[in-house]
Amino acid sequence: MKKIVVIGASGTLGKAVVDNLAGRHEVIRVGKTHGEFQVDITIPESVQALFGRLGKVDGIISTTGQMFFGPVTQMRAEDFAIGLNDKLLGQVRLALVGQHYLNDGGSITLTSGILSDQPIHAGANASSVNAALDGFVRAAAVELGRGLRINAVSPTVVQESWGAYGPFFPGFEAVSAARVALAYQRSVEGPQTGQVYRVW
Amino acid sequence: MKKIVVIGASGTLGKAVVDNLAGRHEVIRVGKTHGEFQVDITIPESVQALFGRLGKVDGIISTTGQMFFGPVTQMRAEDFAIGLNDKLLGQVRLALVGQHYLNDGGSITLTSGILSDQPIHAGANASSVNAALDGFVRAAAVELGRGLRINAVSPTVVQESWGAYGPFFPGFEAVSAARVALAYQRSVEGPQTGQVYRVW
Repeated sequence: MKKIVVIGASGTLGKAVVDNLAGRHEVIRVGKTHGEFQVDITIPESVQALFGRLGKVDGIISTTGQMFFGPVTQMRAEDFAIGLNDKLLGQVRLALVGQHYLNDGGSITLTSGILSDQPIHAGANASSVNAALDGFVRAAAVELGRGLRINAVSPTVVQESWGAYGPFFPGFEAVSAARVALAYQRSVEGPQTGQVYRVW
Repeated sequence: MKKIVVIGASGTLGKAVVDNLAGRHEVIRVGKTHGEFQVDITIPESVQALFGRLGKVDGIISTTGQMFFGPVTQMRAEDFAIGLNDKLLGQVRLALVGQHYLNDGGSITLTSGILSDQPIHAGANASSVNAALDGFVRAAAVELGRGLRINAVSPTVVQESWGAYGPFFPGFEAVSAARVALAYQRSVEGPQTGQVYRVW
């Protein structure tokens, strides 16, 4: 039984992750507006306050973060910065602050996504942000002490969101959120670190 | 004979790129404090002003950008943001603004680096930033019209910088800046787009 905090717990992926873990662990649900605790990952004080309230945990899972979608030919740097400040820096902030609240042997699991490797139209910000998250966990893993581990889960589109996002992913295969949740379980309960678990 | 602007032209890599291209092209040297024109890639107005002064070009090469180096265990989100705002968003800004100043068939070449794939101690920000740049060019390439191309060059440590950086890269092989410059030449004069030219 580990104490696991899931940030983004009310989202499609987050719910599936909670469903997977809740039978075996103490799971704390965190959201921007939902959940037992709230956090805005773009605000340093909000992240600090969250962990101050939670105290020590064994696992930090993030399934949250916004990105910008729009054609490169019309994109401005300030559009591109949206994903940098939210999904990328927000999740990195959860990791950098959260590491100090992890018990020895604890784990951090962030969420990137298939666009890192497989571009779609209007997805340049997402491709960059997701690749950056993969790069971060590969590098952070070699430096964390105390048996701490960090991984990323890189999902394709989930079936539950296919109605909304499918048209932007022609020829991509959707997978169930429950199947993606297995990768988070592998990250939390398995031995690996520095991994990008691709669920494609 | 193409009109090529090199941003970062006075750096170790930039000089080698200029040396490679200058015999065959009109090369415009740009730096933060050196060169024929100056630009601060972190300032939107500065980038806009640069291209306004340059007018239409056939190639944009960036060999510039700062990152943060320091151990993950002590890193703060604001440290991590240094590389996001400078090497990553600064180069992306050059691409997003610069695309509108490129003649049909023109090219953009950004600089990432080996840490995207091969972590070193204290290099998590660099690993993330470099991976983000690789992801950006993969995705941006599929959307640029008018025959425009975009690639990244991902160098290992160059021999000319080995005295300063070698100790941080144990067991890495250095390559000459002149050899790395060939990859920029390939990007400018060759047909490919969406490529990450790894010079490792």
